[in-house]
Amino acid sequence: MGLVVQKYGGSSVADAEGIKRVAKRIVEAKQNGNQVVAVVSAMGDTTDELIDLAEQVSPMPAGRELDMLLTAGERISMALLAMAIKKLGHEAQSFTGSQAGVITDSVHNKARIIDVTPGRIKTSVDEGNIAIVAGFQGVSQDTKDITTLGRGGSDTTAVALAAALDADVCEIYTDVDGVFTADPRVVKKARKIDWISFEDMLELAASGSKVLLHRCVEYARRYNIPIHVRSSFSGLQGTWVSSEPKQGAKQVEQALISGVAHDTSEAKVTVVGVPDKPGEAASIFRTIADAEINIDMVVQNVSAASTGLTDISFTLPKTEGRKAIDALEKNKAGIGFESLRYDDQIGKISLVGAGMKTNPGVTADFFTALSDAGVNIELISTSEIRISVVTRADDVPEAVRAVHSAFGLDSDSDEAVVYGGTGR
Amino acid sequence: MGLVVQKYGGSSVADAEGIKRVAKRIVEAKQNGNQVVAVVSAMGDTTDELIDLAEQVSPMPAGRELDMLLTAGERISMALLAMAIKKLGHEAQSFTGSQAGVITDSVHNKARIIDVTPGRIKTSVDEGNIAIVAGFQGVSQDTKDITTLGRGGSDTTAVALAAALDADVCEIYTDVDGVFTADPRVVKKARKIDWISFEDMLELAASGSKVLLHRCVEYARRYNIPIHVRSSFSGLQGTWVSSEPKQGAKQVEQALISGVAHDTSEAKVTVVGVPDKPGEAASIFRTIADAEINIDMVVQNVSAASTGLTDISFTLPKTEGRKAIDALEKNKAGIGFESLRYDDQIGKISLVGAGMKTNPGVTADFFTALSDAGVNIELISTSEIRISVVTRADDVPEAVRAVHSAFGLDSDSDEAVVYGGTGR
Repeated sequence: MGLVVQKYGGSSVADAEGIKRVAKRIVEAKQNGNQVVAVVSAMGDTTDELIDLAEQVSPMPAGRELDMLLTAGERISMALLAMAIKKLGHEAQSFTGSQAGVITDSVHNKARIIDVTPGRIKTSVDEGNIAIVAGFQGVSQDTKDITTLGRGGSDTTAVALAAALDADVCEIYTDVDGVFTADPRVVKKARKIDWISFEDMLELAASGSKVLLHRCVEYARRYNIPIHVRSSFSGLQGTWVSSEPKQGAKQVEQALISGVAHDTSEAKVTVVGVPDKPGEAASIFRTIADAEINIDMVVQNVSAASTGLTDISFTLPKTEGRKAIDALEKNKAGIGFESLRYDDQIGKISLVGAGMKTNPGVTADFFTALSDAGVNIELISTSEIRISVVTRADDVPEAVRAVHSAFGLDSDSDEAVVYGGTGR
Repeated sequence: MGLVVQKYGGSSVADAEGIKRVAKRIVEAKQNGNQVVAVVSAMGDTTDELIDLAEQVSPMPAGRELDMLLTAGERISMALLAMAIKKLGHEAQSFTGSQAGVITDSVHNKARIIDVTPGRIKTSVDEGNIAIVAGFQGVSQDTKDITTLGRGGSDTTAVALAAALDADVCEIYTDVDGVFTADPRVVKKARKIDWISFEDMLELAASGSKVLLHRCVEYARRYNIPIHVRSSFSGLQGTWVSSEPKQGAKQVEQALISGVAHDTSEAKVTVVGVPDKPGEAASIFRTIADAEINIDMVVQNVSAASTGLTDISFTLPKTEGRKAIDALEKNKAGIGFESLRYDDQIGKISLVGAGMKTNPGVTADFFTALSDAGVNIELISTSEIRISVVTRADDVPEAVRAVHSAFGLDSDSDEAVVYGGTGR
């Protein structure tokens, strides 16, 4: 007998039928001898509808009140889910984030969890109940106001509760079968990954994989909570994300390459004609940071000796592009550059795998695959277990397929890519 | 500068436009130099829609979970209202029933308020905010679970908060201009009442007047909180309900008769052939009470000497009729009656006014008016300040108009009905 924390997203509980289906699945886990805590998001489009309402009333709704409004969404889905479970003859109680002890900072709309005190949840499951908990929400430690956790908040609630309750596993139910070696909409031959390490999953999430958010994986890694990502529709085994392959499960070999991620949501800013002297990059990125813009890749080109000027490029979410350009233009004199170039027709392709650390040639093969596919590389950035390149957005689908195939990730391929030696 | 508690019902905040209109009205009260606490119901049909959803999931939803579900309704309206007020340039904070300190017993779906600890509300208004509070909801003292107060709960929240905050007035905003001398849909000449005592208002509410519920008036009377019932659409002065006419306001004379109420939601049960001996009535009404049915009027007819048998009649909500008949039939042998008669085609007309205590002839005039209108009386019941009769349901509109006119309540009538002496 174990303790299982499950999380169901909005598409799984979009209507009464979805809620009944999820209720059955929760009851199955209970009947298998587990204590069960289920974290649930708002039904389908509820959050969007509430935001629409807010915008009808005020174009810039206050953060505190927007959180109060949005948390009504999970309150509805969790109460309905508890009713559906009781209808199946099992005891269930629903709890708000506040009641579940999800304590956050006071940053409305994107609060961070700072503590979880799940006393009421523990008592409820110890008494034999299934506990249903509102995802995405908490209560501020300082002001006692209701907060929301922002994007991917329900996944984070589930992982944080699993950690606080010392759960055996955190099951994230979604509308896909798990994490794939590439986006199956782009690569038809993409394979479902049976097991992936926290580190590789973090890099995939940072590189555009949408199944799990970086924040949630990071939390799970810190507290070493195994995540099982699976479909709420199919009931199949999904993808395990953990520090090492699950004991007792069929041994999953550490793959050389976990997968190929892509991202076309970013834009590229090039600051042209920056004096090549200490402090220049700092003043550019201080300007960006002061505007509260998160950036991704940063590349500085070699300076032309004749002019003493260099170009610095970085990528950032397209949605932040206007703000970044405005901030830089405003500070042009202070920074001292010649001009700005903005390009939102770019895409990023990333190859992720811990195996590349110890295998030379991965980088070369990656570039060869891109070259063979006729894809031009504009920027390159690497970490220990990831290589990312920026290309034209139009080239992304072909580039992803070419790389996926070159590294033997295609599902009908028996070819194994073998590397020897160290380094890459 | 005073402290005003306002309450806005669901029809006043049915959509974004309604919410903006209510926000303006709240801001006006603030600009007039008051501290303002606004209690708000769920938007328009939200509660019904949530109940529909619950029924799709479970035909008999658990009380705890139904309360969790329904309280999402006020959460939405109160957050939107706070946003709308901030848009007008004033500070506002919304609070759930629990945050506002509305402590109840643990009876889900119809909890009673047992204490109000409005510390956060007090702090919020002292800091210059307008406080928006969810009506209809609280938190259980014992279980810390979310509760709802049942029918008229938002009015009760407002009055209870007004009492706890020692407010100067509790303004109940609704979709009519106030309390009328009769239902204006039935009596075209019905007049708005400027002032009415708690006692008369209690009798009107108990007799079918829908504007204020008995429970809310009872709470206001106990803590001596003046209620001002008025329209959220017109801005006109409405009806003051208090222990005595408001000081400083134009002197309102205590009316002989406050108004005529009617009720066609009840049915009549007659228990035929009951042995006329001690304990019979007790066993009948013990049976009804054990079935948790509230009854209204009770009348026992004179027993026929020849048989030693009597008939006992009582009225009760039509919705409880089936349950009452079943309970009595089941206990027929124990009680010892001959048969039951059930009649749901009845109506009740009540004349209410503290003046009747000291004015003889009111009862006689009341019966004369009914007789002149050709209305047959089936049951009679009186209190110190009320006379009620049961008639055929079809006769109710004509009976109400006849009585309203006979007591000089018609709006275009200058006639004053004068009584001398004592008693009635």
